[in-house]
Amino acid sequence: MKLSKIGEFGLINDVIAPEFKTLVKKNFQGIGDDCSIIPVNEKVSHIFTTDMLVEKTHFLRDKITPYQLGFKSLAVNLSDIAAMGGKPTASYLSVGFPEDIEVEWVEEFLKGYKSLSEKENVPLLGGDTTGSKNEIVINVGVEGEIETSRLKYRSSAKKDDIICVSGFLGDSSAGLQCILNNIPENASTKRLYDQHLTPYPHVAEGQWLAQFNSVHAMIDVSDGIGSDLKHILKASGKAAVVEIESIPISEELKDVCRNNDWNPYELAVSGGEDYVLLFTVDPREYDKLAESFQQFFSKPIYPIGMIAEGKPKIQFRNYGKENPDLNKGYSHFFEK
Amino acid sequence: MKLSKIGEFGLINDVIAPEFKTLVKKNFQGIGDDCSIIPVNEKVSHIFTTDMLVEKTHFLRDKITPYQLGFKSLAVNLSDIAAMGGKPTASYLSVGFPEDIEVEWVEEFLKGYKSLSEKENVPLLGGDTTGSKNEIVINVGVEGEIETSRLKYRSSAKKDDIICVSGFLGDSSAGLQCILNNIPENASTKRLYDQHLTPYPHVAEGQWLAQFNSVHAMIDVSDGIGSDLKHILKASGKAAVVEIESIPISEELKDVCRNNDWNPYELAVSGGEDYVLLFTVDPREYDKLAESFQQFFSKPIYPIGMIAEGKPKIQFRNYGKENPDLNKGYSHFFEK
Repeated sequence: MKLSKIGEFGLINDVIAPEFKTLVKKNFQGIGDDCSIIPVNEKVSHIFTTDMLVEKTHFLRDKITPYQLGFKSLAVNLSDIAAMGGKPTASYLSVGFPEDIEVEWVEEFLKGYKSLSEKENVPLLGGDTTGSKNEIVINVGVEGEIETSRLKYRSSAKKDDIICVSGFLGDSSAGLQCILNNIPENASTKRLYDQHLTPYPHVAEGQWLAQFNSVHAMIDVSDGIGSDLKHILKASGKAAVVEIESIPISEELKDVCRNNDWNPYELAVSGGEDYVLLFTVDPREYDKLAESFQQFFSKPIYPIGMIAEGKPKIQFRNYGKENPDLNKGYSHFFEK
Repeated sequence: MKLSKIGEFGLINDVIAPEFKTLVKKNFQGIGDDCSIIPVNEKVSHIFTTDMLVEKTHFLRDKITPYQLGFKSLAVNLSDIAAMGGKPTASYLSVGFPEDIEVEWVEEFLKGYKSLSEKENVPLLGGDTTGSKNEIVINVGVEGEIETSRLKYRSSAKKDDIICVSGFLGDSSAGLQCILNNIPENASTKRLYDQHLTPYPHVAEGQWLAQFNSVHAMIDVSDGIGSDLKHILKASGKAAVVEIESIPISEELKDVCRNNDWNPYELAVSGGEDYVLLFTVDPREYDKLAESFQQFFSKPIYPIGMIAEGKPKIQFRNYGKENPDLNKGYSHFFEK
């Protein structure tokens, strides 16, 4: 059987995770959340995440600058640390470069990587550099730390929790569509380009949210909420109702969708690569949390639905009406 | 300028390391040894290493079984942990697979990876799986821990230290030559094939050696002692004399070289991928250490030369005569 048949999640869940389960020590957490977890002492845990970016699967060399690619390579990993509520402490960078790459390209790549490293104060402590026959390959690993009691898991969603996101959805995938369809970058599409090419990970937001017991489950939106919320539902054994009209959509996304006859909600639900946080909140504490967040970050959190009992499925509703079309995920695996 | 001009070590030493130096916190160690080091508490340090393997640069799909490749992917990383004297605690595996890969191939790959994971009791805690257009790409990260006082650095070689290796040299590169030249696997070449395809990392040896203050500098032999010893010399600001006739060469290597008119010492010095340990020992303690090692592991360590004052150069001698030809390293970077 070809691997393409079982896909990325099939490979992880059905082949890798069960095969290696027996070796995972007590109190360690392996495959199944945004980061792995190793307890360091009674209070603190060490967390780790890693992501591979392959040219032609994740990016096209002529559609992203090396600076942007360097920035984004680190950003997508910091986003996983954010999703656990953690503080990133170090990063590791492996690169495979084809022979025809210019040193200047590499220097620009490193500048982008460094710019985010500096902003989040995360040292690059090691890595590997090697040759590659055809494609640029990048693998970043980031470790972080967190008080164990503050860790946010995918599996902690509770019935009646309010489902929230920490930013607009769909901008990144609209940005990708602009790039692929040669829609130029201008005042109205700049935000979309930026969200796709240099997404800023919600590390500060994740650490802030991790302080509160009222924040139950958390994940970052890398594949689109249609897919990422389902990870929470599966891990928590719950269902969800999402109100489409509550999904936060930027004015820029509305504009570009109007001009190109795209469906903004489809991009918002299935597009992916938003790198905002998706989390569930105790309904009794929601108002207080939302107000404190607004005060601290001068921006809102967005409630988009509710956790319910039931099988791990999302019921999308539009002003109360069902919307079964919006149920697709986004997979980097064998994507054409 | 093309990247191929400056090579792997140029990229790391001249571009990446200086660019990122400022972010490295006090007591952390970044680029420049086999692992990075983060202090965990007053006594213990956390170490990390990562290696990327790219098809057609590091391996050919039809010349290594997936089981062997899985084993080797982990082995080369465990070898870096061994080189610091550390105990591996967890591994992370990222893979980029082309669409045409069979699930059975992936399962065999994981079996090989797991077999060494089990032998060394190292859980796989996370990773990433993604698609790749053409080549198989593998990135493994391994973390480990060690009492900080036992850490072995490249920079600790002292004048008059005896330079030792923990196993035969050259078998792996002779194995590669057998594979590339279609010299069949038989009783006399099996050892060479095995050393190349499934090298067993000297993790136990590294931890054992790390107990002794008399062991000064340590590194693993991944690029050939010609290159790896030079890393020690550069980091320590010392020179070395290596006695070629003292380099440990297996009977199998001698045989295959005799039959094919190869130079065993060239393979041993420049071949690479031996994944034994190269370390320097206080001459006053050498006899005791060598005897204890022999008793503990039922195999010897091999003294091959001495550390001297001077510029970081290796003087190769053959029964006292200079041998300037044996001075090449082995680079995975843009290798043809």
